[in-house]
Amino acid sequence: MRSQQEITFQERLNETARDIEQLLDTLLEPEPLAGEIARPARLMEAMRYATLGGGKRLRPFLVVESAALFDVPRHHALMVGAALECIHCYSLVHDDLPAMDNDDLRRGRPTTHRAFDEATAVLVGDGLLTLAFDILSRPAVANRKEPGDADIRVQLVGCLARAAGIGGMVGGQMLDLAAEGRFDGTQPRLDQSAVKSLQAMKTGALLRFGCEAGAILGRADHRQRDALRQYGSAIGQAFQIADDLLDVESDPATLGKATGKDAAAHKATLVAILGPQGARSRLQALVAEAEAALAVFAAKAEVLIAAARFVAARKA
Amino acid sequence: MRSQQEITFQERLNETARDIEQLLDTLLEPEPLAGEIARPARLMEAMRYATLGGGKRLRPFLVVESAALFDVPRHHALMVGAALECIHCYSLVHDDLPAMDNDDLRRGRPTTHRAFDEATAVLVGDGLLTLAFDILSRPAVANRKEPGDADIRVQLVGCLARAAGIGGMVGGQMLDLAAEGRFDGTQPRLDQSAVKSLQAMKTGALLRFGCEAGAILGRADHRQRDALRQYGSAIGQAFQIADDLLDVESDPATLGKATGKDAAAHKATLVAILGPQGARSRLQALVAEAEAALAVFAAKAEVLIAAARFVAARKA
Repeated sequence: MRSQQEITFQERLNETARDIEQLLDTLLEPEPLAGEIARPARLMEAMRYATLGGGKRLRPFLVVESAALFDVPRHHALMVGAALECIHCYSLVHDDLPAMDNDDLRRGRPTTHRAFDEATAVLVGDGLLTLAFDILSRPAVANRKEPGDADIRVQLVGCLARAAGIGGMVGGQMLDLAAEGRFDGTQPRLDQSAVKSLQAMKTGALLRFGCEAGAILGRADHRQRDALRQYGSAIGQAFQIADDLLDVESDPATLGKATGKDAAAHKATLVAILGPQGARSRLQALVAEAEAALAVFAAKAEVLIAAARFVAARKA
Repeated sequence: MRSQQEITFQERLNETARDIEQLLDTLLEPEPLAGEIARPARLMEAMRYATLGGGKRLRPFLVVESAALFDVPRHHALMVGAALECIHCYSLVHDDLPAMDNDDLRRGRPTTHRAFDEATAVLVGDGLLTLAFDILSRPAVANRKEPGDADIRVQLVGCLARAAGIGGMVGGQMLDLAAEGRFDGTQPRLDQSAVKSLQAMKTGALLRFGCEAGAILGRADHRQRDALRQYGSAIGQAFQIADDLLDVESDPATLGKATGKDAAAHKATLVAILGPQGARSRLQALVAEAEAALAVFAAKAEVLIAAARFVAARKA
């Protein structure tokens, strides 16, 4: 039996997921746009396969709800959410490649390189990564009638590029492969602080960008922007611990992807270091931390607080 | 025996190559920047390997010289040139992958996935592609004291993303793989117009961006921007024909990569369609077209005219 508040939260999450699905469907239009020579059919089909028809769209939801704190028009936040989701989807396609994590299953379906082929999957990732910045550069991201709209768009570009790049997601994936002993055959023992750094880069940076993007769109002051950054950082950590718990405690049918992989790879996770019980305590502390960070927004932050609880309690 | 003008041109080209090398060396600094958690050592080493120590840096040169038409400060143009070179280098790393063109040699050295490994090469490409947009978002790209500087940066982001994405370079590589019969085992016979479209996307779009970037940086009017676009389009085609002629007529030692590959792959090139003699005539016509497009800039366009001749006559 779910409470009224939970039902409302789930409905909001679903509504944004529907809007993002529709927007991505438009952005990945198979026909060439004005000024384009062509959009290769197989590439578009594979990009749509990798992007549409699934996912909770948690990252776009964070953009939409953090932007709502500042009464940013919803269609601006959705554009940024779609760009962020392109980055997220590209990273899944490239991480699943045989040379990387070599996964056959994703969201219960064959991974892109299995459904198509490896060359296509490489180009799908490259295309989605590039499209994200194309989207952020468009006028639809910020109100042209207000001065400083180009500055908002260029701040979003820089902030997303840093979250997704060498010092963020890409660097985090590199550290993760190194931690698995992929480069020198030895597996370094990562302590808690090294695991936290790795995860802050690999998964935390994009989630934090989602929250910070709302502050940028909303022309937030420093205090508000810092609050959203702290919130984003806490739910980033919570997300990863919940993910690692699911890898230990769920099954492939529920999760739509392989489980037990971390243990099989002797991977250093906070669940492995703290134990499931210790990890669950840490998760609760992070939810409290996320909640506390939002105090500056008072009652307006209700949905984001529910989002933190959702992230910690998710079952798939 | 080279003429005085040619010597001057070569010196200018070398000077920009040196400046770009230095700038990329700084941008790919192995130590984390303020605000970054870490820059994984192996990733940075591989990114530097893929980017530094070679290349004519033709694309950055086009940015610098087209921006010089409008007296844009050189350091702004170099930043944009460095971003463009990151995109070019990422595309070489990904195109060389076993799943793509499977090349072992590039600029006379082992390709990145041979010198390191495939997973690292995928991440090097992703990291460079992302870094390009990080660079374009930085204040160093346009003079902050002049109004509209953010608009210049965001225009550059959008223009580069479209040149490099689905309707540009990534789409062109997809069409190229399809033309080789990689997806259905059959090799479609491409006619001259299909080959031109493919090449305009695969290699032309980035070269054209280089020229258009100068117009954006220089706040050019429509007529000037169109002129640079036409020039860029003509030298893009000339570049590709020269490349295809080298594949037929040069040897691996001179070129620093495998030759005779197009014929071996029964690849549709303008050299194959028009024959070497016909291709050379077309090359001359394109140089004339590039020159004519620049008439609006009168004597100021001298270096860009020399660049068109250089592209058509290059030996490696």
